Amino acid sequence: MEFPEKAKVQSCVIKFRPRYNETDQGGVVHHSIYPIYFEMGRTELLRENGIAYKDLEAAGVFFVVARLDVKYRQPARYDEELELETVCTTVKASKVEHRYTLKRCSDGLILSEGSSVLCCVNKEGKIRHIPEFMYPAI
Amino acid sequence: MEFPEKAKVQSCVIKFRPRYNETDQGGVVHHSIYPIYFEMGRTELLRENGIAYKDLEAAGVFFVVARLDVKYRQPARYDEELELETVCTTVKASKVEHRYTLKRCSDGLILSEGSSVLCCVNKEGKIRHIPEFMYPAI
Amino acid sequence: MEFPEKAKVQSCVIKFRPRYNETDQGGVVHHSIYPIYFEMGRTELLRENGIAYKDLEAAGVFFVVARLDVKYRQPARYDEELELETVCTTVKASKVEHRYTLKRCSDGLILSEGSSVLCCVNKEGKIRHIPEFMYPAI
Amino acid sequence: MEFPEKAKVQSCVIKFRPRYNETDQGGVVHHSIYPIYFEMGRTELLRENGIAYKDLEAAGVFFVVARLDVKYRQPARYDEELELETVCTTVKASKVEHRYTLKRCSDGLILSEGSSVLCCVNKEGKIRHIPEFMYPAI
Repeated sequence: MEFPEKAKVQSCVIKFRPRYNETDQGGVVHHSIYPIYFEMGRTELLRENGIAYKDLEAAGVFFVVARLDVKYRQPARYDEELELETVCTTVKASKVEHRYTLKRCSDGLILSEGSSVLCCVNKEGKIRHIPEFMYPAI
Repeated sequence: MEFPEKAKVQSCVIKFRPRYNETDQGGVVHHSIYPIYFEMGRTELLRENGIAYKDLEAAGVFFVVARLDVKYRQPARYDEELELETVCTTVKASKVEHRYTLKRCSDGLILSEGSSVLCCVNKEGKIRHIPEFMYPAI
Repeated sequence: MEFPEKAKVQSCVIKFRPRYNETDQGGVVHHSIYPIYFEMGRTELLRENGIAYKDLEAAGVFFVVARLDVKYRQPARYDEELELETVCTTVKASKVEHRYTLKRCSDGLILSEGSSVLCCVNKEGKIRHIPEFMYPAI
Repeated sequence: MEFPEKAKVQSCVIKFRPRYNETDQGGVVHHSIYPIYFEMGRTELLRENGIAYKDLEAAGVFFVVARLDVKYRQPARYDEELELETVCTTVKASKVEHRYTLKRCSDGLILSEGSSVLCCVNKEGKIRHIPEFMYPAI
């Protein structure tokens, strides 16, 4: 497969609603669900740069999460519309860093902030350089 | 790897407690979790017959769920001790069928009953015969 | 809150893509995820009839899954676009039944079919009649 | 309900095996599962001090995750025995902090390290002091 030129888009926003099974008996979205939302954000950011993560995998390029940090400010609730901003903050050698801001759409309240470090590995799990196109244009 | 002789154990019981994230805001275990419990039951039944499912996969033998049926009688709750009985009811050609009964340990109340049909496939997903050893002794 | 008149919409179609965490090491979407998709379908069908499930809950009307049946025909894969049709097939007294068809968008291949029976209960979990508006118009 | 005296146990170890559905198509346990393991660790640490988290909730004492930090060092795999050490590192006013170390049992390899900050809230989600008994003896 062919990779696109350079990454032109460094941030994106997705909207979605928490599913019923994502809540817990405390009545709010369980904290283990937020990393799943963050991953959805990364997937769409990649797609906006012209490539699907599954195509990267097909080309032998895998990204594994090496570090995750989440601050939970306010609870997210079932079926309310949320907005997640994902920003790619650093790309170097074998690492990509992102920052996340999760907001409630109705009033813009920040529910959570987070960050992650991904490592680029090959099919055998060995660290490798990230593909050229993932470096930001400029 | 070597497979054991014949399957000598046709049923097993496992005990466990629902995790917090498995509940939903209705205050009980979400219905999508029960198939996960059933799979845990199958894994242990296989282990009691001397083989781990991961070793089957390593040997190119995969089982995929073709049919699932669950009756939910009473809600399961966070952290209460549950007991799941898994019975292998049919083994033939490329199919294995199981029946499940989930009970609350404190009083033996039946919370759920279910059944499943698994198909045996190879690494490419093509249907294949189940390994000889999985047929019941006798 | 006010309920709408009568249910005018008996079926709906939603589109979505499986998330990475929904796959398992077999390389396809885990079978326990399909009931979650079905629930998403019911939520949107209700919304098309003018009410959100969370508003039903706020009004003391809960639906619990009493029976679930799933046939898995072909595997669903990470990030491919899927289309789920949800049809409300029966409404009576305290029960609502739905039928589900999950297809791959690219070629219309049916991946899974399922059905469910929901019971209507009050906040204490006692069976109650379903709200009038949920009966189909006509 | 009656609370125990003082927390006498500041750390505990639990053993368990990753479930099949916890893996992803990368062939390892998905990173969003680790916070679930950590929560299991906290639950058992509390139990070793003589109280179940569900009893705390019944008494109007809830803990919500305010901060989570995870380092992923090596992948965890399906069905291999893991050992999680949970240590309560700080208790003060409305906060409890824990540290986690996840190891592979077969060789003691550290797979992941993490930490979390929990806030104590009442049923309405307002911050409250943690119960007296949760302070460490001495």
